Amino acid sequence: MRVEFLELKTVSEAQRIFLDACPRGPLGVETVPLLEAAGRVAAEEVRAPHDMPAFHRSTVDGYAVRAADTFGASEALPAYLRIVEDIPMGRAPSRPLEPGQAARIATGGMLPANADAVVMVEHTELLADDEVGVVRPVAPWANVMRKGEDCPRGGVLLRAGALLRPQELGLLAHAGILQVAVARRPRVAIIGTGDELVDPREEPGPGQIRESNSFALYALVAAAGAEPVILGTAPDDEGAIRSKLQAAWRDCDVVLVSGGSSIGVRDLTARLLEELGKPGILVHGVSLKPAKPTILAVAEDKPAVGLPGNPVSAHVSFHLFVEPLLRRLVGLPALARHRPAIRARMAKNYASAQGRVDVLRVALVERDGEVWAEPVQGKSGLISTLTEADGIVVVEEGHEGLLAGQWVDVVPV
Amino acid sequence: MRVEFLELKTVSEAQRIFLDACPRGPLGVETVPLLEAAGRVAAEEVRAPHDMPAFHRSTVDGYAVRAADTFGASEALPAYLRIVEDIPMGRAPSRPLEPGQAARIATGGMLPANADAVVMVEHTELLADDEVGVVRPVAPWANVMRKGEDCPRGGVLLRAGALLRPQELGLLAHAGILQVAVARRPRVAIIGTGDELVDPREEPGPGQIRESNSFALYALVAAAGAEPVILGTAPDDEGAIRSKLQAAWRDCDVVLVSGGSSIGVRDLTARLLEELGKPGILVHGVSLKPAKPTILAVAEDKPAVGLPGNPVSAHVSFHLFVEPLLRRLVGLPALARHRPAIRARMAKNYASAQGRVDVLRVALVERDGEVWAEPVQGKSGLISTLTEADGIVVVEEGHEGLLAGQWVDVVPV
Repeated sequence: MRVEFLELKTVSEAQRIFLDACPRGPLGVETVPLLEAAGRVAAEEVRAPHDMPAFHRSTVDGYAVRAADTFGASEALPAYLRIVEDIPMGRAPSRPLEPGQAARIATGGMLPANADAVVMVEHTELLADDEVGVVRPVAPWANVMRKGEDCPRGGVLLRAGALLRPQELGLLAHAGILQVAVARRPRVAIIGTGDELVDPREEPGPGQIRESNSFALYALVAAAGAEPVILGTAPDDEGAIRSKLQAAWRDCDVVLVSGGSSIGVRDLTARLLEELGKPGILVHGVSLKPAKPTILAVAEDKPAVGLPGNPVSAHVSFHLFVEPLLRRLVGLPALARHRPAIRARMAKNYASAQGRVDVLRVALVERDGEVWAEPVQGKSGLISTLTEADGIVVVEEGHEGLLAGQWVDVVPV
Repeated sequence: MRVEFLELKTVSEAQRIFLDACPRGPLGVETVPLLEAAGRVAAEEVRAPHDMPAFHRSTVDGYAVRAADTFGASEALPAYLRIVEDIPMGRAPSRPLEPGQAARIATGGMLPANADAVVMVEHTELLADDEVGVVRPVAPWANVMRKGEDCPRGGVLLRAGALLRPQELGLLAHAGILQVAVARRPRVAIIGTGDELVDPREEPGPGQIRESNSFALYALVAAAGAEPVILGTAPDDEGAIRSKLQAAWRDCDVVLVSGGSSIGVRDLTARLLEELGKPGILVHGVSLKPAKPTILAVAEDKPAVGLPGNPVSAHVSFHLFVEPLLRRLVGLPALARHRPAIRARMAKNYASAQGRVDVLRVALVERDGEVWAEPVQGKSGLISTLTEADGIVVVEEGHEGLLAGQWVDVVPV
């Protein structure tokens, strides 16, 4: 069966069609030690096992008081309180606070029973070893982190689907939760195809080049939080590609095939991807520059992507289709809600075609105190246009281009 | 010796004073396999061992020609050329191209000697098995990636101090360079101090809390490309802190001590940091909210930072002082030239003080098709204000605050 080059899809159509057909993660759940959980995605909701903090804590150095005892206090007429205790850090106060009493307390210390505020030491004068004058009133619960204020017992500490950042690790450690259930990392097979390719360890002969996309894809997959599996290179031969594809499809959750830039080879790759299972190829060609010959397929719930062999195109295609896929497979929204970017002004005009997405590589340069995005010159087949770039500018479908001086968002790559 | 609380430094002064006194990396060089080099920083310049590509390659499917043979060709009057060869992918053409000849070539194929352009198949008509009509002229070197165009032999593939991104890995693999010399990762000791702290594995008693900053700092240090070393918690005791500090200072490249929020303990930490060596404490207190009681020290060329015990303050202080330090120690510019951010509009007014940097935690919300930055309410001692935040807004020294509706840069944290 010969798969025809379907009509080109727009990038947004292609993303929607492909991602809607892909499974929503997590693909599985595993429990990992908290220290290894950074960058992973919570597979289950976690609730606080106790009030956090478990007791009223002072947020300043000063005196724990009953706030009402300080009402009306001033420099002219301080409130005089008996110091009944020095509260040691990390220990419970020995006695509840009676009216007219105060207890010396440090930042982080536990308030005695009946105390409902802390007066900062700066707003007191020590009159005797056991007597303090408060020169400013405090409101109830001033300078106190109340029991359960960070999270009450049973409150949600972590939502299912939340990315574990450093602060989530801190919050969980604080609650004594040192193991966390996270989405299993998708295993992503990486295959190169092409008669001209040799293993990078080998010396290429005339007409040959070293396969290098696997290395870039390995790093891209790992940075996206998935597990890259390099399966090596197949020549442009039906049997060789089929056997690699089938092994990849069997052992991994996602299959990436890069290479096959010529029409004949592209058709062969498409045909073999189609063979893997239903629904098969969903998108064959995207209105996108570079990376038009991207193939997006799903076979029996496993996504497979045919990336262009051209390294710049492969990178762009990964960025637009594979990264969202990998986010989806761990339970994150496929398209990040907001993408951090560097604002810069276009250094030159750039003409695009309406209905097509253009991805420009740009270098950032500073001039007259402003940041300018300078398009990197050179054919899109040159890897050096990516290594010289600080980021990309995505010219959306509805635009006919960019004008010099216009503000654009540069996404670091 | 009692170290006085020096006058507060502004954030920019503090960064300058501290970073200028810290060693500039790399601290050492190690050679790693290319696949493990992503995110590392090149310690040495790498030059191309050969022309890249090593031969003229076609960038399209079509016919290799001598461009001059096509000059004047048109639909009405094609240029007729003899097809002398099908160039197989990955092999050298068997013969040079004579005038009037063409060779069939696929994308990525090697041009024969004397060929200087490729005509796209779309601009030809096949007249016989061995004859093609070219209906559009091609300029010399059209549709060709010339030998050395990606990088000529001896050209710089990688600068010393360059961050290794996926594309740098691809470029090096393409050149057959599978080992790369990178800056050694700084070893960063993490120490918690405080009588109230217990190990997160333990059940805290009354007045005690679990030490959790180490977990957040571990993840922050690792994300910054350094190697975190957790040294556990010391009570607020001179001997205990001194022995941990000295071990950390001996075995690691950077020492982070978090905790000691009360004045007495802060003074103790400062005194012990000062003991480590010259020049000692450079900054003790920063005009910054939160994280004012940050201590920045250098002892015999080793940086040591006293982070506030409050988890939010520790995070902010890390962001402003430790991350730039770790960048510097691997040979990157300490302050990233451009920091990716999400543009959003402030949902509320925020009053700051001139001369002080305020770091706001904000959540991003979408409203009326725009992105708004909503300050996260709650005391800065609450870790939940960081877990509920999507990022931070830095209110710079020269500003008195932010107005509702104003555009701000939200840096993801």
